[in-house]
Amino acid sequence: MKRIAIGVEYAGDAFCGWQSQAHGQTVQDVLERALSEIAAERVRLHCAGRTDTGVHASAQVAHFDTSARRPLSAWVRGVNALLPSAVVVRWAVEVDEAFHARFLATERQYRYILHNAPTRPAMLAGRVGWFHQVLDEQRMAEAVACLVGTHDFSSFRAAGCQAKTPIRVMHEARVVRQGEYLLFDFRANGFLHHMIRNLVGALVYVGKGRYPVEWMNDLLQARDRAFAAPTFSPDGLYLCGVSYPPRWPLPNDGRIIALPQLPLV
Amino acid sequence: MKRIAIGVEYAGDAFCGWQSQAHGQTVQDVLERALSEIAAERVRLHCAGRTDTGVHASAQVAHFDTSARRPLSAWVRGVNALLPSAVVVRWAVEVDEAFHARFLATERQYRYILHNAPTRPAMLAGRVGWFHQVLDEQRMAEAVACLVGTHDFSSFRAAGCQAKTPIRVMHEARVVRQGEYLLFDFRANGFLHHMIRNLVGALVYVGKGRYPVEWMNDLLQARDRAFAAPTFSPDGLYLCGVSYPPRWPLPNDGRIIALPQLPLV
Repeated sequence: MKRIAIGVEYAGDAFCGWQSQAHGQTVQDVLERALSEIAAERVRLHCAGRTDTGVHASAQVAHFDTSARRPLSAWVRGVNALLPSAVVVRWAVEVDEAFHARFLATERQYRYILHNAPTRPAMLAGRVGWFHQVLDEQRMAEAVACLVGTHDFSSFRAAGCQAKTPIRVMHEARVVRQGEYLLFDFRANGFLHHMIRNLVGALVYVGKGRYPVEWMNDLLQARDRAFAAPTFSPDGLYLCGVSYPPRWPLPNDGRIIALPQLPLV
Repeated sequence: MKRIAIGVEYAGDAFCGWQSQAHGQTVQDVLERALSEIAAERVRLHCAGRTDTGVHASAQVAHFDTSARRPLSAWVRGVNALLPSAVVVRWAVEVDEAFHARFLATERQYRYILHNAPTRPAMLAGRVGWFHQVLDEQRMAEAVACLVGTHDFSSFRAAGCQAKTPIRVMHEARVVRQGEYLLFDFRANGFLHHMIRNLVGALVYVGKGRYPVEWMNDLLQARDRAFAAPTFSPDGLYLCGVSYPPRWPLPNDGRIIALPQLPLV
């Protein structure tokens, strides 16, 4: 039996989220079908971050066990030939049996991309969030700072969240503007269900001036979802990095690589 | 009667090209339906560049005549509310009756984005071309230089091209690398059918070392499509700028605006 870790990129608007469902239209479903065909046996995947419907990943990490003996390239090029165009395996490495993509991840990194412009996006419809009123990124940058550290994030937790504890350690939280786009970057040991989309919703309220900068900290301290802003759309959310202990030096080091400048006027 | 010019952005993989067809699934069709509904009369569009199926535009320009009296915002926000998500009107301005989006354009600018990496794109499937072998951008940059100036581009012209002459004036032609991406930029008074995709196909042959740098000029001089490389895919092609005489200072000045760094590993 061998344990293989893979790095996966996908456009979330083409799937009903990561986690396997009866209808089979999830990222896990299409990957397991392709891997099982290459392995000639049933393959079961475990991933670092079970993204929701519409949420994208540039650097998802998953692992599976198999008794099939295949060159590593079979788990990349062979599998990719069987996958739909919106998902691809970027790399595959063998790991020892102590590795676990979900339970041993020390950090997850997410980016939310918000198109802040009068007209909605077309070229990147479904790939970026959109807000038409001008947002003040300075206020949002000030407001987001209170999230860094160890906190009870109950105020930003979805009703159906199944996590055992609402406590998370936020390593980084920032907001920067790039022209018509706002980038929200979060690094934490883990995230609650809908946590980032709820954080973005609250930050947008601060950015448009509906609430003062201090409201973000008040909200955090309240530990009650009832006071927060609506959950923001999944369109602009990307899982873009997962870290593991140095014992497992994966090709996926969580670096964000620049896309070429798409010609968006 | 008023003449209105509009700037349009669209993802070409969602449409069967620009030009109206009986099945109604083209960019022109969906725009004309939305504009006609706002105008409460039949509206007919004329555009600067009739892009093929799968070809994108960040800065298409078109115009129409209407007797409807509407605020300019109706041609933007009103129309956008009726359009599918993959197309959007970015701006609308009134122009005098001498303006014509197609016949008066002095320059069109296109960019081809090629993902040059071992694994195919997933997040940007349909939005960038892909070539898996390493390409030498220095050789391609040298080869592309011969295209600048006034030339007979018959070697890069599709069989069905209906242009009256194969002569075009190329103002700029360049190839640059941005990490895993190659950007091909072309500015000319106009382009023949499939011309850029044929140019990219030939440049890829030079970049992978199949032909010497000088082959590009030999090909140009041959004025015969029979000697050229296969037409490259439409996936990475963007109409990203159209210029007009200074009498019509349109909001669309052909500038290429940076997309935020999408988290693509």
